[in-house]
Amino acid sequence: MTTDMDVDQILTLFRDCVGGAHVLTAHEDTAAYTEDWRKKYLGKALAVVCPGTTDEVACVMRIAHAHATPVVTQGGNTGLSGGATPDTSGRQIVLSTRRLHRIRHIDTANDTVIAEAGVVLQALQDAARAHDRLFPLALAAQGSCTVGGNLATNAGGVAVLRYGSMRELTLGLEVVTPDGRIWNGLRTLRKDNTGYDLKQLYIGSEGTLGVITAAALKLFPRPKAMLTAMMALGSLGDAVKLLADARGALGPGLTAFEVISAPCVPLLARHYPALRWPFTESHPLVALLEITDHDSETHAREGLERLLVDAMERGLVVDGVVAESLAQSQALWSLRESISEAQGLEGAHIKHDICVPASSVADFVSQAEEALARDTPGARVAWFGHLGDGNLHFNVLAPEGADSKTFAARQGEINALVHDLVSACNGSISAEHGLGQLRRDENQRYKTPLELSLMRQVKAALDPSGLMNPGKVLASD
Amino acid sequence: MTTDMDVDQILTLFRDCVGGAHVLTAHEDTAAYTEDWRKKYLGKALAVVCPGTTDEVACVMRIAHAHATPVVTQGGNTGLSGGATPDTSGRQIVLSTRRLHRIRHIDTANDTVIAEAGVVLQALQDAARAHDRLFPLALAAQGSCTVGGNLATNAGGVAVLRYGSMRELTLGLEVVTPDGRIWNGLRTLRKDNTGYDLKQLYIGSEGTLGVITAAALKLFPRPKAMLTAMMALGSLGDAVKLLADARGALGPGLTAFEVISAPCVPLLARHYPALRWPFTESHPLVALLEITDHDSETHAREGLERLLVDAMERGLVVDGVVAESLAQSQALWSLRESISEAQGLEGAHIKHDICVPASSVADFVSQAEEALARDTPGARVAWFGHLGDGNLHFNVLAPEGADSKTFAARQGEINALVHDLVSACNGSISAEHGLGQLRRDENQRYKTPLELSLMRQVKAALDPSGLMNPGKVLASD
Repeated sequence: MTTDMDVDQILTLFRDCVGGAHVLTAHEDTAAYTEDWRKKYLGKALAVVCPGTTDEVACVMRIAHAHATPVVTQGGNTGLSGGATPDTSGRQIVLSTRRLHRIRHIDTANDTVIAEAGVVLQALQDAARAHDRLFPLALAAQGSCTVGGNLATNAGGVAVLRYGSMRELTLGLEVVTPDGRIWNGLRTLRKDNTGYDLKQLYIGSEGTLGVITAAALKLFPRPKAMLTAMMALGSLGDAVKLLADARGALGPGLTAFEVISAPCVPLLARHYPALRWPFTESHPLVALLEITDHDSETHAREGLERLLVDAMERGLVVDGVVAESLAQSQALWSLRESISEAQGLEGAHIKHDICVPASSVADFVSQAEEALARDTPGARVAWFGHLGDGNLHFNVLAPEGADSKTFAARQGEINALVHDLVSACNGSISAEHGLGQLRRDENQRYKTPLELSLMRQVKAALDPSGLMNPGKVLASD
Repeated sequence: MTTDMDVDQILTLFRDCVGGAHVLTAHEDTAAYTEDWRKKYLGKALAVVCPGTTDEVACVMRIAHAHATPVVTQGGNTGLSGGATPDTSGRQIVLSTRRLHRIRHIDTANDTVIAEAGVVLQALQDAARAHDRLFPLALAAQGSCTVGGNLATNAGGVAVLRYGSMRELTLGLEVVTPDGRIWNGLRTLRKDNTGYDLKQLYIGSEGTLGVITAAALKLFPRPKAMLTAMMALGSLGDAVKLLADARGALGPGLTAFEVISAPCVPLLARHYPALRWPFTESHPLVALLEITDHDSETHAREGLERLLVDAMERGLVVDGVVAESLAQSQALWSLRESISEAQGLEGAHIKHDICVPASSVADFVSQAEEALARDTPGARVAWFGHLGDGNLHFNVLAPEGADSKTFAARQGEINALVHDLVSACNGSISAEHGLGQLRRDENQRYKTPLELSLMRQVKAALDPSGLMNPGKVLASD
């Protein structure tokens, strides 16, 4: 354990390792690293240490290990579950990956890229595009979040339906172990069955098992055409049917299938009045579809229009628009991507990032809406998200005019109400945001003792000293 | 440890658990379970125990655990690395999953299936087809291999290019731990980030961490059309270029890209004279492409013919045929699928199941061919396989007329020659066959001490008694 005695000595060791300019201790320098993006968690760090190479990460970890200093690895600090925020003890260091920002290698013949943990997602997308390739992970925070954070949380986003989450996009990892050894697992192979697939443990482990310093990732050929459409529907059940029809008709050409519920629409109108909602009448929900095609825009448009006409003839879709230009496509996506911010501007709200099987999603939503109407009259249930993956951001807004603090105080009850229903559908209480601090204790309620015990066995095996991001994912001992 | 004293007592406990008819001890009953498919490994079992339910598996494991009896889990016994064969001690039991053959649930709205470990792969493909869905894993042994074996080895096959290996097709697992507890991780979710992804550890672990009893797997919409083509090429480098062109032009419509080298052709002619090779002239290699399409056969054919014409104009492809019927398609696939058996009929040969990045595959093959020509004059290098994944079955046949035993005795040297070159390309010495016994010791040569140490830490965490398939993947202590 760190004592007051040796703090200066430890800081000196870190400075020797990464250079004095890269060990931040002044409050004004560390403040951006010690509070999470949603400003729900405020911690305090012994120092923010910013290594510039994998060898420097290993050096930092050897010092931390020798001096029993807990390490919180942080990328873009855009997480939604407080997973990268230090605790309030002032004993933990933040290991920032921001200086690990090199794209080491792009292999277009193999369709792979090796990128360091601190590369910003959008920079990776841009680098792939510059080589006429696609790196498909796409999410709202892409201008700030990093590859390392995407790996640590197994990030999802809007293209999972077609390309999978970050886990499916990863072929290999470079990891520094808690005691400062470097594992070079940067293989760029599509098939490799030579023992336990260790990278799978680090992906999604939220920095609790080691420090991911670089990754070998898949690239894809860029489609020739991309089209966006918005379709108005009468019910969530109809949306699930439309999803099945679209998957059948378009196969992998269906790259996104998002939904927006009616209560989101007035929030957009109020807080983003410049955005134009494409429908004049009100509908229970709309679906936002993205179609990509390797043949031509003409072929994509034929497929999409055929789907829309068929769905309207079947009565599934009551109205629809197909974007005629990239600008129109971006305008439709802006509506989808502004909801989260609009909810923030609207005031107190309780977020849920849930996933249930597509076959259960309509029942889940109607049960949860009914239960909330009974439990919290006037609460506005404004859900939206990735129906193609069964993943909804099922957010509950305070009744209009209600006191924010009184509503916020009910978070635990409302979480339990929603998550108990999720659990009854064999669903997930964290589809793509991870557990961090936010869902750590709730997770104990929904996992079996055996699964929690297996998780603890893995943690003890790979981080026996318990110094990696303590208190995240699992409670500290 | 099992002693002579208590063998009868243990067998009685197993009989009480699964029924007397399902504990096999007579040599004629156990013989099919104690030798591997290639007849390279012959073991001896205390008994072959065949539980019929997950609860019975748990009961068997509690008995094995209490009496320190090692357990070798076996599915269809079609593995190529001796991973499911007991050792010669007679102390190990074979736990056969053959009676766990139920398909528990198919959810067409969610495109998922829950299947038990003993379901034969082809039965699963058929069940999916009966619900107008596709389960895409496809490999030569599909008429005999089981879902559990596919999971334990992370099976690959001919559709990995489009759909991934068994790992990518898996959403959840049910596993019995070495001490007989049942973990129900049968979630059918596309997104779930609520802690360590434990299923990833069991997938590909070859029965060394627990017993997989059931899995939740992805289904896909069935494409409307499937086309097959064979194209003759002048070099492997040209094949890699054709692969890139095909990926760009067809995107996910390219579902298989296989290659067959020239030395395979006379073997087919000799041992399968009824099969008709479609080209009259000799070529260094041919590629077998499969294209699927969600639009129509017309659209698929246009795309494929455009690719073929473009490739011929560029000089990449020197000759080509497109199957005009399902029968012609099957005839082309039969050529590909008969090579392995033809090599077996030809005589002594040394198999390698390697994977290298697509950008290295041509260099690797030419280096390995040159080295073998120097090292073993006359040896025939008859490679074939899944170029789309960088995975070649790089098999070396004895020189014509050579003594089989003399050649077979050189297996270790030839393995080292080939695998050292694979390793120099940052490749894999077992792309899809697993380590089993065959590659266990070689793997020590190519993995770093740190990676081996991490694997041992995982093994110790999940199988602390070391009773799960000892001596496979990792050497026994």
